[in-house]
Amino acid sequence: MKIKVVKVGGNVVEDDRMLGIFATDFARMEGARILVHGGGVMASSLQKRLGMEPVMVGGRRVTDAQTLEIVTMVYAGWCNKHIVATLQKNGCNAVGLCGADGSAIKASRRPPVTTTDSETGEVHETDYGYVGDIAADGVNTRFLESLLEQGITPALCAITHDGAGNLLNTNADTIASSVAEALSSNGHGHEVELTYCFEKQGVLYDKDDPDSVIPEITPGIYASLKSEGRVADGMIPKLDNAFKAIGNGVSRVVIKHACNLGNATGTAIIGHR
Amino acid sequence: MKIKVVKVGGNVVEDDRMLGIFATDFARMEGARILVHGGGVMASSLQKRLGMEPVMVGGRRVTDAQTLEIVTMVYAGWCNKHIVATLQKNGCNAVGLCGADGSAIKASRRPPVTTTDSETGEVHETDYGYVGDIAADGVNTRFLESLLEQGITPALCAITHDGAGNLLNTNADTIASSVAEALSSNGHGHEVELTYCFEKQGVLYDKDDPDSVIPEITPGIYASLKSEGRVADGMIPKLDNAFKAIGNGVSRVVIKHACNLGNATGTAIIGHR
Repeated sequence: MKIKVVKVGGNVVEDDRMLGIFATDFARMEGARILVHGGGVMASSLQKRLGMEPVMVGGRRVTDAQTLEIVTMVYAGWCNKHIVATLQKNGCNAVGLCGADGSAIKASRRPPVTTTDSETGEVHETDYGYVGDIAADGVNTRFLESLLEQGITPALCAITHDGAGNLLNTNADTIASSVAEALSSNGHGHEVELTYCFEKQGVLYDKDDPDSVIPEITPGIYASLKSEGRVADGMIPKLDNAFKAIGNGVSRVVIKHACNLGNATGTAIIGHR
Repeated sequence: MKIKVVKVGGNVVEDDRMLGIFATDFARMEGARILVHGGGVMASSLQKRLGMEPVMVGGRRVTDAQTLEIVTMVYAGWCNKHIVATLQKNGCNAVGLCGADGSAIKASRRPPVTTTDSETGEVHETDYGYVGDIAADGVNTRFLESLLEQGITPALCAITHDGAGNLLNTNADTIASSVAEALSSNGHGHEVELTYCFEKQGVLYDKDDPDSVIPEITPGIYASLKSEGRVADGMIPKLDNAFKAIGNGVSRVVIKHACNLGNATGTAIIGHR
Protein backbone atom coordinates (compact mmCIF):
# COMPACT_ATOMS: atom_id res chain seq x y z
CA MET A 1 0.00 0.00 0.00
CA LYS A 2 1.18 3.60 -0.62
CA ILE A 3 0.87 5.53 2.65
CA LYS A 4 1.41 9.23 3.26
CA VAL A 5 2.32 10.27 6.81
CA VAL A 6 1.88 14.02 7.30
CA LYS A 7 2.96 15.82 10.44
CA VAL A 8 1.61 19.30 11.11
CA GLY A 9 3.00 21.59 13.79
CA GLY A 10 1.16 23.19 16.68
CA ASN A 11 1.55 26.70 15.25
CA VAL A 12 -0.54 25.62 12.27
CA VAL A 13 -3.19 23.79 14.32
CA GLU A 14 -3.75 26.91 16.43
CA ASP A 15 -4.19 29.21 13.41
CA ASP A 16 -7.68 28.79 11.95
CA ARG A 17 -6.73 30.22 8.55
CA MET A 18 -3.67 27.97 8.09
CA LEU A 19 -5.49 24.95 9.51
CA GLY A 20 -8.35 25.53 7.05
CA ILE A 21 -6.00 25.59 4.02
CA PHE A 22 -4.04 22.60 5.31
CA ALA A 23 -7.15 20.54 6.09
CA THR A 24 -8.66 21.22 2.66
CA ASP A 25 -5.47 20.06 0.91
CA PHE A 26 -5.05 17.07 3.25
CA ALA A 27 -8.66 15.97 2.68
CA ARG A 28 -8.15 16.23 -1.11
CA MET A 29 -5.10 13.94 -1.07
CA GLU A 30 -5.79 10.53 -2.51
CA GLY A 31 -5.15 7.17 -0.93
CA ALA A 32 -4.10 6.04 2.51
CA ARG A 33 -2.80 8.74 4.81
CA ILE A 34 -2.07 9.36 8.48
CA LEU A 35 -2.00 12.75 10.18
CA VAL A 36 0.23 13.49 13.19
CA HIS A 37 -0.10 16.83 14.96
CA GLY A 38 1.48 18.92 17.68
CA GLY A 39 -0.03 21.57 19.95
CA GLY A 40 2.86 22.78 22.10
CA VAL A 41 2.13 26.50 21.88
CA MET A 42 -1.39 26.06 23.22
CA ALA A 43 -0.13 23.72 25.97
CA SER A 44 2.37 26.35 27.16
CA SER A 45 -0.30 29.02 27.08
CA LEU A 46 -2.72 26.90 29.15
CA GLN A 47 0.08 26.12 31.63
CA LYS A 48 0.67 29.87 32.06
CA ARG A 49 -3.06 30.62 32.42
CA LEU A 50 -3.09 28.06 35.26
CA GLY A 51 -0.11 29.71 36.94
CA MET A 52 2.49 27.14 35.88
CA GLU A 53 5.76 27.94 34.12
CA PRO A 54 6.59 25.59 31.22
CA VAL A 55 10.03 24.00 31.68
CA MET A 56 11.83 22.98 28.48
CA VAL A 57 15.18 21.14 28.41
CA GLY A 58 16.81 20.64 25.00
CA GLY A 59 13.54 21.57 23.27
CA ARG A 60 11.56 18.94 25.21
CA ARG A 61 8.89 19.71 27.83
CA VAL A 62 9.58 18.49 31.36
CA THR A 63 6.27 16.77 32.15
CA ASP A 64 5.20 16.38 35.77
CA ALA A 65 1.75 14.94 36.63
CA GLN A 66 -0.01 18.31 36.29
CA THR A 67 1.71 19.05 32.98
CA LEU A 68 0.72 15.60 31.68
CA GLU A 69 -2.91 16.42 32.47
CA ILE A 70 -2.58 19.69 30.55
CA VAL A 71 -0.82 18.31 27.45
CA THR A 72 -3.32 15.42 27.31
CA MET A 73 -6.22 17.89 27.47
CA VAL A 74 -4.69 20.14 24.81
CA TYR A 75 -3.25 17.55 22.39
CA ALA A 76 -5.78 14.68 22.66
CA GLY A 77 -8.70 16.97 23.54
CA TRP A 78 -9.06 20.33 21.86
CA CYS A 79 -6.39 20.13 19.11
CA ASN A 80 -7.17 16.55 18.07
CA LYS A 81 -10.95 16.90 18.03
CA HIS A 82 -10.86 20.34 16.38
CA ILE A 83 -8.73 18.84 13.58
CA VAL A 84 -10.95 15.76 13.24
CA ALA A 85 -14.13 17.89 13.02
CA THR A 86 -12.42 20.08 10.39
CA LEU A 87 -11.37 17.03 8.34
CA GLN A 88 -14.86 15.51 8.60
CA LYS A 89 -16.30 18.80 7.32
CA ASN A 90 -13.98 18.42 4.31
CA GLY A 91 -15.14 14.88 3.61
CA CYS A 92 -12.13 13.08 5.11
CA ASN A 93 -13.23 10.28 7.46
CA ALA A 94 -10.73 10.88 10.27
CA VAL A 95 -10.53 9.15 13.65
CA GLY A 96 -8.48 10.94 16.29
CA LEU A 97 -6.18 8.76 18.36
CA CYS A 98 -3.66 8.96 21.14
CA GLY A 99 -1.24 6.10 21.61
CA ALA A 100 -3.51 4.41 24.18
CA ASP A 101 -6.42 4.09 21.72
CA GLY A 102 -6.25 0.58 20.29
CA SER A 103 -2.77 0.62 21.87
CA ALA A 104 -1.69 2.46 18.70
CA ILE A 105 1.68 3.55 20.14
CA LYS A 106 3.41 2.13 23.18
CA ALA A 107 6.28 3.98 24.80
CA SER A 108 8.43 3.64 27.88
CA ARG A 109 9.04 6.39 30.37
CA ARG A 110 12.40 8.05 29.81
CA PRO A 111 14.79 7.49 32.72
CA PRO A 112 16.49 10.60 34.18
CA VAL A 113 19.24 11.83 31.83
CA THR A 114 22.66 12.94 33.06
CA THR A 115 24.58 15.50 31.01
CA THR A 116 27.97 17.06 31.59
CA ASP A 117 28.49 20.68 30.61
CA SER A 118 31.41 20.63 28.13
CA GLU A 119 32.76 23.98 29.35
CA THR A 120 32.31 23.92 33.12
CA GLY A 121 32.32 20.14 33.62
CA GLU A 122 29.20 20.52 35.76
CA VAL A 123 26.94 17.47 35.85
CA HIS A 124 23.19 18.00 35.46
CA GLU A 125 20.46 15.43 35.93
CA THR A 126 17.15 15.97 34.13
CA ASP A 127 14.08 13.93 34.96
CA TYR A 128 11.69 14.60 32.09
CA GLY A 129 8.86 13.03 34.08
CA TYR A 130 5.98 11.55 32.07
CA VAL A 131 7.86 11.67 28.77
CA GLY A 132 7.76 8.54 26.64
CA ASP A 133 10.25 7.14 24.15
CA ILE A 134 8.61 4.88 21.59
CA ALA A 135 9.42 1.21 22.20
CA ALA A 136 11.21 -0.80 19.47
CA ASP A 137 7.96 -2.54 18.50
CA GLY A 138 5.85 0.31 19.84
CA VAL A 139 3.85 1.17 16.70
CA ASN A 140 0.76 -1.04 16.32
CA THR A 141 1.03 -1.29 12.53
CA ARG A 142 -1.76 -3.89 12.31
CA PHE A 143 -4.25 -1.51 13.91
CA LEU A 144 -3.21 1.42 11.69
CA GLU A 145 -3.27 -0.78 8.56
CA SER A 146 -6.75 -2.04 9.45
CA LEU A 147 -8.06 1.53 9.79
CA LEU A 148 -6.45 2.55 6.47
CA GLU A 149 -7.94 -0.50 4.74
CA GLN A 150 -11.39 0.64 5.95
CA GLY A 151 -10.82 4.07 4.40
CA ILE A 152 -10.35 5.67 7.82
CA THR A 153 -7.67 8.34 8.30
CA PRO A 154 -5.96 8.10 11.71
CA ALA A 155 -5.16 11.49 13.26
CA LEU A 156 -2.52 10.92 15.93
CA CYS A 157 -1.68 13.36 18.71
CA ALA A 158 1.55 13.48 20.71
CA ILE A 159 0.39 11.32 23.63
CA THR A 160 1.43 7.67 24.01
CA HIS A 161 0.92 5.09 26.79
CA ASP A 162 3.06 2.52 28.57
CA GLY A 163 0.46 -0.27 28.74
CA ALA A 164 0.48 -0.06 32.54
CA GLY A 165 -2.17 2.64 32.72
CA ASN A 166 0.09 5.68 32.27
CA LEU A 167 -0.17 8.25 29.50
CA LEU A 168 3.14 9.72 28.31
CA ASN A 169 4.09 12.90 26.44
CA THR A 170 5.97 12.09 23.23
CA ASN A 171 7.35 14.46 20.59
CA ALA A 172 5.06 14.62 17.53
CA ASP A 173 7.96 14.71 14.99
CA THR A 174 9.24 11.47 16.52
CA ILE A 175 5.78 9.89 16.41
CA ALA A 176 5.53 10.77 12.71
CA SER A 177 8.92 9.26 11.83
CA SER A 178 8.38 6.18 14.02
CA VAL A 179 5.01 5.49 12.37
CA ALA A 180 6.48 6.03 8.89
CA GLU A 181 9.44 3.76 9.66
CA ALA A 182 7.32 0.98 11.20
CA LEU A 183 4.96 0.93 8.21
CA SER A 184 7.83 0.83 5.69
CA SER A 185 9.94 -1.73 7.50
CA ASN A 186 10.58 -5.09 5.84
CA GLY A 187 7.78 -6.97 7.52
CA HIS A 188 5.21 -4.56 6.13
CA GLY A 189 6.82 -3.22 3.00
CA HIS A 190 4.50 -0.28 2.41
CA GLU A 191 5.77 2.60 0.30
CA VAL A 192 5.70 5.44 2.81
CA GLU A 193 6.15 9.16 2.19
CA LEU A 194 6.71 11.42 5.21
CA THR A 195 5.95 15.15 5.11
CA TYR A 196 6.69 17.61 7.89
CA CYS A 197 4.47 20.69 7.57
CA PHE A 198 5.15 23.87 9.51
CA GLU A 199 4.91 27.64 9.17
CA LYS A 200 8.01 28.13 6.95
CA GLN A 201 8.61 27.34 3.27
CA GLY A 202 11.16 24.62 4.07
CA VAL A 203 14.65 24.45 5.55
CA LEU A 204 16.11 27.94 5.01
CA TYR A 205 19.72 28.70 4.13
CA ASP A 206 19.32 32.09 5.79
CA LYS A 207 16.74 32.01 8.56
CA ASP A 208 15.94 35.70 7.98
CA ASP A 209 15.23 35.19 4.27
CA PRO A 210 11.99 33.24 3.82
CA ASP A 211 12.84 32.70 0.13
CA SER A 212 16.18 30.96 0.77
CA VAL A 213 14.64 27.46 0.79
CA ILE A 214 17.18 24.67 0.27
CA PRO A 215 15.48 22.34 -2.25
CA GLU A 216 17.42 19.21 -1.24
CA ILE A 217 19.55 18.29 1.76
CA THR A 218 22.01 15.41 1.58
CA PRO A 219 24.02 14.21 4.60
CA GLY A 220 26.96 16.26 3.26
CA ILE A 221 24.92 19.46 2.97
CA TYR A 222 23.46 18.79 6.44
CA ALA A 223 26.96 18.52 7.93
CA SER A 224 27.99 21.83 6.33
CA LEU A 225 24.81 23.58 7.49
CA LYS A 226 25.46 22.41 11.04
CA SER A 227 29.12 23.42 11.02
CA GLU A 228 28.14 26.86 9.67
CA GLY A 229 25.50 27.14 12.42
CA ARG A 230 22.78 27.57 9.81
CA VAL A 231 20.29 25.13 11.31
CA ALA A 232 18.62 26.27 14.50
CA ASP A 233 17.89 24.26 17.65
CA GLY A 234 14.36 23.22 16.71
CA MET A 235 15.40 22.13 13.21
CA ILE A 236 18.19 19.74 14.24
CA PRO A 237 15.96 17.05 15.84
CA LYS A 238 13.55 17.39 12.89
CA LEU A 239 16.36 16.81 10.37
CA ASP A 240 17.84 14.02 12.50
CA ASN A 241 14.40 12.33 12.48
CA ALA A 242 14.13 12.89 8.72
CA PHE A 243 17.51 11.27 7.96
CA LYS A 244 16.77 8.40 10.35
CA ALA A 245 13.46 7.80 8.53
CA ILE A 246 15.18 7.72 5.13
CA GLY A 247 17.79 5.34 6.55
CA ASN A 248 15.03 3.07 7.87
CA GLY A 249 13.21 2.58 4.60
CA VAL A 250 10.88 5.58 4.26
CA SER A 251 10.72 6.38 0.52
CA ARG A 252 10.65 10.16 0.65
CA VAL A 253 10.82 12.87 3.32
CA VAL A 254 9.86 16.49 2.63
CA ILE A 255 9.80 19.52 4.95
CA LYS A 256 7.43 22.26 3.77
CA HIS A 257 4.89 24.96 4.56
CA ALA A 258 1.49 23.69 5.81
CA CYS A 259 -0.26 25.80 3.15
CA ASN A 260 1.72 24.08 0.37
CA LEU A 261 0.69 20.48 0.95
CA GLY A 262 -0.98 20.41 -2.46
CA ASN A 263 2.09 21.47 -4.47
CA ALA A 264 5.71 20.45 -5.04
CA THR A 265 7.63 22.89 -2.83
CA GLY A 266 9.79 22.61 0.27
CA THR A 267 12.98 20.79 1.17
CA ALA A 268 13.48 17.14 0.23
CA ILE A 269 15.75 14.98 2.39
CA ILE A 270 18.09 12.86 0.28
CA GLY A 271 19.67 9.88 2.05
CA HIS A 272 22.77 9.34 -0.09
CA ARG A 273 24.15 10.55 -3.38
CA MET B 1 -25.20 -9.40 18.54
CA LYS B 2 -25.62 -8.86 22.29
CA ILE B 3 -24.28 -5.40 23.14
CA LYS B 4 -23.83 -3.81 26.56
CA VAL B 5 -23.83 -0.01 26.71
CA VAL B 6 -22.44 1.23 30.03
CA LYS B 7 -22.49 4.87 31.06
CA VAL B 8 -20.28 6.00 33.90
CA GLY B 9 -20.60 9.40 35.57
CA GLY B 10 -17.96 12.08 35.95
CA ASN B 11 -17.76 11.65 39.73
CA VAL B 12 -16.54 8.09 39.16
CA VAL B 13 -14.08 8.98 36.40
CA GLU B 14 -12.44 11.57 38.64
CA ASP B 15 -12.02 9.16 41.60
CA ASP B 16 -9.04 6.88 40.98
CA ARG B 17 -10.22 4.23 43.44
CA MET B 18 -13.75 3.97 42.01
CA LEU B 19 -12.46 4.17 38.42
CA GLY B 20 -10.03 1.33 39.16
CA ILE B 21 -12.79 -0.95 40.48
CA PHE B 22 -15.16 -0.01 37.65
CA ALA B 23 -12.52 -0.47 34.92
CA THR B 24 -11.51 -3.89 36.26
CA ASP B 25 -15.14 -5.09 36.21
CA PHE B 26 -15.82 -3.48 32.83
CA ALA B 27 -12.73 -5.10 31.31
CA ARG B 28 -13.83 -8.50 32.69
CA MET B 29 -17.27 -8.30 31.06
CA GLU B 30 -17.68 -10.63 28.13
CA GLY B 31 -18.80 -9.79 24.63
CA ALA B 32 -19.45 -6.57 22.78
CA ARG B 33 -19.64 -3.44 24.91
CA ILE B 34 -19.53 0.32 24.60
CA LEU B 35 -18.52 2.75 27.34
CA VAL B 36 -19.94 6.28 27.59
CA HIS B 37 -18.54 8.66 30.19
CA GLY B 38 -19.07 12.09 31.69
CA GLY B 39 -16.61 14.50 33.29
CA GLY B 40 -18.71 17.49 34.36
CA VAL B 41 -17.17 18.00 37.79
CA MET B 42 -13.66 18.33 36.37
CA ALA B 43 -14.95 20.67 33.62
CA SER B 44 -16.51 22.99 36.22
CA SER B 45 -13.34 22.93 38.29
CA LEU B 46 -11.16 23.83 35.27
CA GLN B 47 -13.58 26.62 34.35
CA LYS B 48 -13.19 28.05 37.86
CA ARG B 49 -9.39 27.71 37.81
CA LEU B 50 -9.45 29.76 34.59
CA GLY B 51 -11.62 32.43 36.22
CA MET B 52 -14.89 31.44 34.56
CA GLU B 53 -18.14 30.72 36.38
CA PRO B 54 -20.00 27.61 35.13
CA VAL B 55 -23.58 28.48 34.10
CA MET B 56 -26.11 25.65 34.36
CA VAL B 57 -29.74 25.92 33.25
CA GLY B 58 -32.04 22.96 34.02
CA GLY B 59 -28.99 20.81 34.79
CA ARG B 60 -27.37 21.55 31.41
CA ARG B 61 -24.17 23.58 30.93
CA VAL B 62 -24.48 26.78 28.91
CA THR B 63 -21.58 26.35 26.48
CA ASP B 64 -20.00 29.42 24.90
CA ALA B 65 -16.89 29.11 22.69
CA GLN B 66 -14.48 29.17 25.66
CA THR B 67 -16.55 26.62 27.58
CA LEU B 68 -16.64 24.34 24.52
CA GLU B 69 -12.82 24.43 24.42
CA ILE B 70 -12.72 23.47 28.11
CA VAL B 71 -15.27 20.65 27.97
CA THR B 72 -13.59 19.23 24.85
CA MET B 73 -10.21 19.29 26.62
CA VAL B 74 -11.61 17.67 29.76
CA TYR B 75 -14.04 15.11 28.25
CA ALA B 76 -12.24 14.10 25.01
CA GLY B 77 -8.76 14.80 26.41
CA TRP B 78 -7.92 13.91 29.99
CA CYS B 79 -11.01 11.89 31.04
CA ASN B 80 -11.29 9.89 27.81
CA LYS B 81 -7.59 9.05 27.48
CA HIS B 82 -7.18 8.33 31.21
CA ILE B 83 -10.07 5.83 30.95
CA VAL B 84 -8.71 4.27 27.73
CA ALA B 85 -5.22 3.83 29.24
CA THR B 86 -6.80 2.25 32.35
CA LEU B 87 -8.89 -0.15 30.23
CA GLN B 88 -5.86 -1.09 28.10
CA LYS B 89 -3.94 -1.85 31.31
CA ASN B 90 -6.79 -4.24 32.21
CA GLY B 91 -6.62 -6.01 28.86
CA CYS B 92 -9.65 -4.31 27.28
CA ASN B 93 -8.84 -3.00 23.78
CA ALA B 94 -10.58 0.37 23.99
CA VAL B 95 -10.58 3.19 21.46
CA GLY B 96 -11.65 6.59 22.78
CA LEU B 97 -13.98 8.56 20.55
CA CYS B 98 -15.85 11.81 20.41
CA GLY B 99 -18.75 12.14 18.01
CA ALA B 100 -16.53 13.65 15.30
CA ASP B 101 -14.27 10.57 15.17
CA GLY B 102 -15.48 8.44 12.28
CA SER B 103 -18.53 10.74 12.50
CA ALA B 104 -19.69 8.44 15.31
CA ILE B 105 -22.39 10.83 16.54
CA LYS B 106 -23.85 13.77 14.65
CA ALA B 107 -25.87 16.41 16.45
CA SER B 108 -27.45 19.73 15.66
CA ARG B 109 -26.95 22.86 17.67
CA ARG B 110 -29.88 23.50 19.99
CA PRO B 111 -31.79 26.68 19.08
CA PRO B 112 -32.44 29.17 21.93
CA VAL B 113 -35.18 27.88 24.24
CA THR B 114 -37.98 30.09 25.58
CA THR B 115 -39.53 29.18 28.93
CA THR B 116 -42.29 30.88 30.91
CA ASP B 117 -42.06 30.90 34.69
CA SER B 118 -45.27 29.21 35.88
CA GLU B 119 -45.53 31.44 38.96
CA THR B 120 -44.48 34.90 37.77
CA GLY B 121 -45.35 34.49 34.08
CA GLU B 122 -41.92 35.90 33.25
CA VAL B 123 -40.48 34.77 29.91
CA HIS B 124 -36.84 33.66 29.80
CA GLU B 125 -34.79 32.90 26.73
CA THR B 126 -31.82 30.56 27.14
CA ASP B 127 -29.22 30.14 24.40
CA TYR B 128 -27.28 27.02 25.42
CA GLY B 129 -24.58 27.89 22.88
CA TYR B 130 -22.53 24.98 21.52
CA VAL B 131 -24.87 22.32 22.88
CA GLY B 132 -25.90 19.56 20.50
CA ASP B 133 -29.05 17.46 20.32
CA ILE B 134 -28.47 14.14 18.60
CA ALA B 135 -29.99 14.03 15.14
CA ALA B 136 -32.66 11.40 14.31
CA ASP B 137 -30.11 9.31 12.37
CA GLY B 138 -27.18 10.76 14.31
CA VAL B 139 -25.63 7.54 15.63
CA ASN B 140 -23.27 5.93 13.10
CA THR B 141 -24.26 2.35 13.96
CA ARG B 142 -22.25 0.89 11.08
CA PHE B 143 -19.02 2.39 12.44
CA LEU B 144 -19.73 1.23 16.01
CA GLU B 145 -20.73 -2.25 14.80
CA SER B 146 -17.56 -2.53 12.74
CA LEU B 147 -15.40 -1.67 15.79
CA LEU B 148 -17.29 -4.18 17.96
CA GLU B 149 -16.89 -6.89 15.30
CA GLN B 150 -13.11 -6.27 15.43
CA GLY B 151 -13.13 -6.79 19.21
CA ILE B 152 -12.60 -3.09 19.84
CA THR B 153 -14.46 -1.37 22.70
CA PRO B 154 -15.54 2.18 21.82
CA ALA B 155 -15.24 4.63 24.74
CA LEU B 156 -17.42 7.62 23.91
CA CYS B 157 -17.16 11.02 25.59
CA ALA B 158 -19.87 13.67 25.73
CA ILE B 159 -18.74 15.66 22.66
CA THR B 160 -20.51 15.40 19.29
CA HIS B 161 -20.13 17.30 16.00
CA ASP B 162 -22.46 18.88 13.44
CA GLY B 163 -20.60 17.76 10.30
CA ALA B 164 -19.89 21.41 9.45
CA GLY B 165 -16.69 21.59 11.48
CA ASN B 166 -18.23 22.42 14.88
CA LEU B 167 -17.87 20.36 18.02
CA LEU B 168 -20.91 20.34 20.34
CA ASN B 169 -21.41 19.54 24.03
CA THR B 170 -23.97 16.75 24.50
CA ASN B 171 -25.21 15.14 27.72
CA ALA B 172 -23.53 11.76 28.32
CA ASP B 173 -26.73 10.06 29.61
CA THR B 174 -28.44 11.04 26.36
CA ILE B 175 -25.51 9.76 24.28
CA ALA B 176 -25.73 6.42 26.10
CA SER B 177 -29.49 6.02 25.54
CA SER B 178 -29.30 7.23 21.91
CA VAL B 179 -26.52 4.74 21.13
CA ALA B 180 -28.41 1.92 22.86
CA GLU B 181 -31.65 2.79 21.03
CA ALA B 182 -30.00 3.10 17.61
CA LEU B 183 -28.28 -0.28 17.97
CA SER B 184 -31.48 -2.02 19.12
CA SER B 185 -33.79 -0.41 16.57
CA ASN B 186 -35.48 -2.63 13.98
CA GLY B 187 -32.96 -2.11 11.23
CA HIS B 188 -30.17 -3.48 13.43
CA GLY B 189 -31.92 -5.77 15.85
CA HIS B 190 -29.14 -6.15 18.37
CA GLU B 191 -30.07 -7.17 21.90
CA VAL B 192 -28.90 -4.15 23.87
CA GLU B 193 -28.57 -3.74 27.63
CA LEU B 194 -28.05 -0.23 29.02
CA THR B 195 -26.47 0.37 32.43
CA TYR B 196 -26.11 3.75 34.12
CA CYS B 197 -23.33 3.67 36.73
CA PHE B 198 -22.89 6.40 39.30
CA GLU B 199 -21.86 6.89 42.93
CA LYS B 200 -25.12 5.63 44.55
CA GLN B 201 -26.52 2.10 44.93
CA GLY B 202 -29.45 2.81 42.60
CA VAL B 203 -32.56 4.98 42.66
CA LEU B 204 -33.24 5.61 46.36
CA TYR B 205 -36.69 5.78 47.96
CA ASP B 206 -35.22 8.04 50.67
CA LYS B 207 -32.29 10.05 49.35
CA ASP B 208 -30.77 10.17 52.85
CA ASP B 209 -30.88 6.38 53.27
CA PRO B 210 -28.29 4.76 50.98
CA ASP B 211 -29.89 1.34 51.63
CA SER B 212 -33.37 2.32 50.38
CA VAL B 213 -32.70 1.17 46.82
CA ILE B 214 -35.86 0.62 44.76
CA PRO B 215 -35.22 -2.72 42.96
CA GLU B 216 -37.64 -2.03 40.07
CA ILE B 217 -39.34 1.09 38.75
CA THR B 218 -42.41 0.80 36.51
CA PRO B 219 -44.08 3.84 34.89
CA GLY B 220 -46.65 3.73 37.73
CA ILE B 221 -44.00 3.74 40.46
CA TYR B 222 -42.14 6.54 38.61
CA ALA B 223 -45.32 8.67 38.57
CA SER B 224 -45.79 8.17 42.33
CA LEU B 225 -42.14 8.95 43.09
CA LYS B 226 -42.40 12.17 41.11
CA SER B 227 -45.68 13.23 42.73
CA GLU B 228 -44.17 12.55 46.18
CA GLY B 229 -41.10 14.62 45.22
CA ARG B 230 -38.85 11.61 45.85
CA VAL B 231 -36.77 11.89 42.69
CA ALA B 232 -34.35 14.79 42.58
CA ASP B 233 -33.56 17.12 39.67
CA GLY B 234 -30.59 15.17 38.33
CA MET B 235 -32.44 11.84 38.46
CA ILE B 236 -35.50 12.91 36.41
CA PRO B 237 -33.72 13.28 33.02
CA LYS B 238 -31.85 10.02 33.74
CA LEU B 239 -35.10 8.15 34.40
CA ASP B 240 -36.79 9.83 31.42
CA ASN B 241 -33.90 8.62 29.23
CA ALA B 242 -34.19 5.15 30.76
CA PHE B 243 -37.93 4.83 30.04
CA LYS B 244 -37.46 6.24 26.53
CA ALA B 245 -34.76 3.61 25.89
CA ILE B 246 -37.03 0.78 27.07
CA GLY B 247 -39.82 2.18 24.88
CA ASN B 248 -37.47 2.26 21.89
CA GLY B 249 -36.44 -1.38 22.02
CA VAL B 250 -33.57 -1.54 24.52
CA SER B 251 -33.90 -4.92 26.29
CA ARG B 252 -32.93 -3.92 29.80
CA VAL B 253 -31.97 -0.72 31.64
CA VAL B 254 -30.33 -0.74 35.08
CA ILE B 255 -29.16 2.14 37.29
CA LYS B 256 -26.48 1.12 39.80
CA HIS B 257 -23.27 1.90 41.67
CA ALA B 258 -20.11 2.01 39.54
CA CYS B 259 -18.41 -0.41 41.94
CA ASN B 260 -21.19 -2.99 41.43
CA LEU B 261 -20.94 -3.52 37.68
CA GLY B 262 -19.97 -7.15 38.27
CA ASN B 263 -23.02 -8.10 40.39
CA ALA B 264 -26.82 -8.02 40.22
CA THR B 265 -27.68 -4.93 42.24
CA GLY B 266 -29.27 -1.58 41.49
CA THR B 267 -32.59 -0.40 40.11
CA ALA B 268 -34.09 -2.04 37.02
CA ILE B 269 -36.37 0.03 34.78
CA ILE B 270 -39.48 -1.91 33.77
CA GLY B 271 -41.37 -0.57 30.76
CA HIS B 272 -44.83 -2.05 31.41
CA ARG B 273 -46.44 -4.58 33.70
